Amino acid sequence: MPKAVCLLSGGLDSATCLAIARRDGFECYALSFEYGQRHRVELEAAARVAGALGAARHIVARISLDAFGGSALTAPIEVPKGRSAAEMGEGIPVTYVPARNTIFLSFALAWAEVLGTGDIFIGVNALDYSGYPDCRPEFIEAYERMANLATRVGVEGTARVKIHTPLLRLSKAEIVKLGAELELPFGLTHSCYDPSPDGRPCGACDACLLRRKGFEEAGIEDR
Amino acid sequence: MPKAVCLLSGGLDSATCLAIARRDGFECYALSFEYGQRHRVELEAAARVAGALGAARHIVARISLDAFGGSALTAPIEVPKGRSAAEMGEGIPVTYVPARNTIFLSFALAWAEVLGTGDIFIGVNALDYSGYPDCRPEFIEAYERMANLATRVGVEGTARVKIHTPLLRLSKAEIVKLGAELELPFGLTHSCYDPSPDGRPCGACDACLLRRKGFEEAGIEDR
Repeated sequence: MPKAVCLLSGGLDSATCLAIARRDGFECYALSFEYGQRHRVELEAAARVAGALGAARHIVARISLDAFGGSALTAPIEVPKGRSAAEMGEGIPVTYVPARNTIFLSFALAWAEVLGTGDIFIGVNALDYSGYPDCRPEFIEAYERMANLATRVGVEGTARVKIHTPLLRLSKAEIVKLGAELELPFGLTHSCYDPSPDGRPCGACDACLLRRKGFEEAGIEDR
Repeated sequence: MPKAVCLLSGGLDSATCLAIARRDGFECYALSFEYGQRHRVELEAAARVAGALGAARHIVARISLDAFGGSALTAPIEVPKGRSAAEMGEGIPVTYVPARNTIFLSFALAWAEVLGTGDIFIGVNALDYSGYPDCRPEFIEAYERMANLATRVGVEGTARVKIHTPLLRLSKAEIVKLGAELELPFGLTHSCYDPSPDGRPCGACDACLLRRKGFEEAGIEDR
């Protein structure tokens, strides 16, 4: 069975992405990060999802992105609430974590090399994506090109690095429908950027609003 | 004064690279990593060098690359000793750490973004480089291209990301000469992959051998 490293935040998108990797016949190595995020509760969701979907292994890498500051997700900056779709479409929001996907993919690349595979799955989305530069197709393409020059697997030609982005061009509603088809237990996932201390979603941050809209449009219940 | 993030391992090359960034008029933000390396003593060298060269700040980011395994620098695999130049030229050695420079540059990129700059210095070298794929010019070019698509500074055009590699095409002897010109205190730096518990270099690993050869060819004393 071919191996794949699957980035898993614990949210709806990455969980759906993991379910797709499994459907496509990969043995999945799930990778999450403790990076100083205020919504650390997502890591419990990641562990639940990795277990439920039968990941071969789940690693939580600890990295201190908060040392650099600069994001509402890791620094004491307020998470925006109740923004309209138009507002979300304007520029890069304060919840953007500098170079986050670049860093996450780089760790995935390291693990993939050690596993002797070039297959990496990431649940980025260029439609309902809240304005992050590192979720765009041109970024993913450039990353893949770089990765093939960076690594033993690429240079020795034993395995071409391939960044799989099965959600890239799907709407949130389409992602929900796909997750339902794959019998993803939605209730195990966590999306909110600013949960209450006991882990309940705020219902008003961009992540909560995009999630609700996705389920509503798909006509599927979020549970 | 323009700002630059300078990757600083504590070795001869990265210290020379930092001295060059300073000479070129940058305010330097030095970045080192505790990544599970057996030659952790290099971090003390990095702190000494950052202090001696007047870095504006020095951060040591803790990341556990040893969670993935796969390198003699982070796993219980023997570091090769007494290899000839010809042997070093054959393929990728076991001291290669999967995706290390990709990961290091990605953290530098995050910090640069927060500082509002695009200037990053890395002391990679494509000549006396011991066979690592992520030290080659084509890797650096692909990384820079990716970085400009990954980040706020690149996308908004506030600062183009530029990966400065002033040592890329220099021999070790030329690096030593340059370091001497810039009055780099060589004695503060550390190169060995497999030092004794009290931090003394083994004198026989690739890093020790390349360093000795460089000083000999430059006709400069290593102190």
